[in-house]
Amino acid sequence: MSVVEQARRARGAAEALAVATRTVKDAALHAMADALVARTPELLTANAADLAAGREAGLSAAVLDRLALDEGRVAGIADALRQMAALPDPVGEVVRGATLPNGLELRQVRVPFGVVGIIYEGRPNVTVDAAGICLKSGNAALLRGSSSAAHSNAALVAVLRDAVARAGLPADAVQLLDASTRDSVKELMRARGLVDVLIPRGGASLIRTVVEESTVPVIETGVGNCHVYVDAAADLAKAVAITLNSKTQRLSTCNTAESLLVHAGVADAFLPAVLAAFADAGVTVHGDARVAAYSEAVVPATEEDFDTEYLSADISVAVVDSLDAAVAHIRRHGTGHTEAIVTDSQPAAREFVARVDAAAVMVNASTRFTDGGEFGFGAEIGISTQKLHARGPMGLPELTSTKYVVTGDGHLR
Amino acid sequence: MSVVEQARRARGAAEALAVATRTVKDAALHAMADALVARTPELLTANAADLAAGREAGLSAAVLDRLALDEGRVAGIADALRQMAALPDPVGEVVRGATLPNGLELRQVRVPFGVVGIIYEGRPNVTVDAAGICLKSGNAALLRGSSSAAHSNAALVAVLRDAVARAGLPADAVQLLDASTRDSVKELMRARGLVDVLIPRGGASLIRTVVEESTVPVIETGVGNCHVYVDAAADLAKAVAITLNSKTQRLSTCNTAESLLVHAGVADAFLPAVLAAFADAGVTVHGDARVAAYSEAVVPATEEDFDTEYLSADISVAVVDSLDAAVAHIRRHGTGHTEAIVTDSQPAAREFVARVDAAAVMVNASTRFTDGGEFGFGAEIGISTQKLHARGPMGLPELTSTKYVVTGDGHLR
Repeated sequence: MSVVEQARRARGAAEALAVATRTVKDAALHAMADALVARTPELLTANAADLAAGREAGLSAAVLDRLALDEGRVAGIADALRQMAALPDPVGEVVRGATLPNGLELRQVRVPFGVVGIIYEGRPNVTVDAAGICLKSGNAALLRGSSSAAHSNAALVAVLRDAVARAGLPADAVQLLDASTRDSVKELMRARGLVDVLIPRGGASLIRTVVEESTVPVIETGVGNCHVYVDAAADLAKAVAITLNSKTQRLSTCNTAESLLVHAGVADAFLPAVLAAFADAGVTVHGDARVAAYSEAVVPATEEDFDTEYLSADISVAVVDSLDAAVAHIRRHGTGHTEAIVTDSQPAAREFVARVDAAAVMVNASTRFTDGGEFGFGAEIGISTQKLHARGPMGLPELTSTKYVVTGDGHLR
Repeated sequence: MSVVEQARRARGAAEALAVATRTVKDAALHAMADALVARTPELLTANAADLAAGREAGLSAAVLDRLALDEGRVAGIADALRQMAALPDPVGEVVRGATLPNGLELRQVRVPFGVVGIIYEGRPNVTVDAAGICLKSGNAALLRGSSSAAHSNAALVAVLRDAVARAGLPADAVQLLDASTRDSVKELMRARGLVDVLIPRGGASLIRTVVEESTVPVIETGVGNCHVYVDAAADLAKAVAITLNSKTQRLSTCNTAESLLVHAGVADAFLPAVLAAFADAGVTVHGDARVAAYSEAVVPATEEDFDTEYLSADISVAVVDSLDAAVAHIRRHGTGHTEAIVTDSQPAAREFVARVDAAAVMVNASTRFTDGGEFGFGAEIGISTQKLHARGPMGLPELTSTKYVVTGDGHLR
């Protein structure tokens, strides 16, 4: 089936989803969870085929691990759906409302987008997560996963569609697109009018392609060249802990710190401590000349290092002469994801927060906190790094639009 | 100067605007208003040059009228700026906030987009309006007006820039792009990373071009194929009045009704009355066969008529057999702008509101009410017909993004 035909079916399903009550949608989420658990054996069989193909293709152990399902992981994926069912329904929320001077009653009400396309890599749990978040927010989902997970995704979506249909909603609310060809991505990007929004999740090059070529509105996610700035007035023990946590708590996430800026006034006191901590943690430091003076282990940093989202045990480090210089550096090299300041100075914190242009600004906290779960949103479809519509972690409300409902009694202008 | 260079200057100005207080911004708006009034003679001289060129180029009387400035119109334009100053500042508004279980303080705060590009036609008042709305919301404005208003716009922007600079804000907060070539539009559409959002206002073909070719995120505005549906349970006197007001109160606006759907059950009672009213008002009715049966004046409607935004004294009319058929017709032909139902039936109103997918749905009110002024927003940059970011009339908050500010005390994950 062509993507356009799948999108057309999704539109039909979206009409029913838009008016489905929370009770019905939550029942569908529970049915999806129950079915995944009940049909775990067939999921694991399909997953084994992907793993075998992956091993043959020489995928790394880390990639194979992300791809792998077992009974425990399927149960975890099912639990995530049950937790979504417990979240409030964003659809129908009245965002603003007023009675106008002429007596017209105005309400701005949350409504689903309609059809949401999601392009993602690797992990099969994203297939279920995305399907669940879309269903809860009243949207039909067109899922374009990775070819490396094709068997797993096909099995998962088959189970989900059965469950959705048994819950009385259209099975076409959840559809998997052909992952064997790039054509499906191209068709999806051109399905303006049928697809309401496209969310690419994955590498920088995928995101760039979608942003440049899509006529369907896009929510850009993910690339995070996040900085920790240690201010002149920082508590240095906290600064070491926050820097280390931001860099090493998990290396491969978009909210991981990739760059450290140190105020010259605390360089002598702070750099030896943090460099020792990085050495202990096995982190390679790419430093400018002023940083290199503190340790022979420092690899000279190029300009490119400061633009790099390593996603590995590497960090770029520079000494800056002022908060102003730190802000300028972040403006030049940041990606607008998460920027942190460590300081005990209230004026410094206030200035950093006001002047740094990013989805999230942390004061005395790890960059790793930029996350829908940590923010208490309960479910997350990605982290937007654009300014339009949604910025930062996107939960259920970010998957909705609004509609003005205006009620009168024969009102004329 | 190239558009890219102008955009770069706008970015610089935006940094200052983002942290400007309301006091400073409102003072700038008043300074702009005062300067426009004080320098009216030079504005009128420039406008006279545009009008002379327009007459020579054979522009219609209506277009020349929209282009023309006089003392009263300049005073009106200045007053609009003063009214903007009286509106609350959207920047800094805390949209949500919470203290998380671990003690982190989370705030989602409104921030300006940064640089906003606006592409528009004809009327010089849009130049001032757009500059004012952008400044109030903390954004630098790149204005690409019509070549037919080039002299007027250059004079207006020169006056505005002087006033902005005298108020202590960067003059580059307001810049006019070259309107003599389409290249400036192309460059603007490709200035991703420098321009945060692009708002095309104008004809359907301009909007389509921008939507298809821009890599800068776009907010689509304007095309309105708006319907009035007269339900079986309508109060027919109100229905005639609402239909007539929706169609004729102003012919050329996007919230003007272009199509009328009549439930078969009231066709005998309603159509003769509304057709007579249309005849009196000089409106040509393009009707389907069932409508044509009621009057010889009805022009047979083609399928194309039902897709046409006339913006003239024409309306397409069809008889439908049910509310369901009306909703289906609107799904097929509507542009998601404004759809109205006239009914005294609560269930019919509820169903129409729930099922019709549009920026605004009117119950027993004229389609003409979809307007930032009528909704009480005080200022409007356009009416969005897309679902991402903003839908319906866009006021000051719609010209902002948000930023999460997370404050801790050495918090680690």
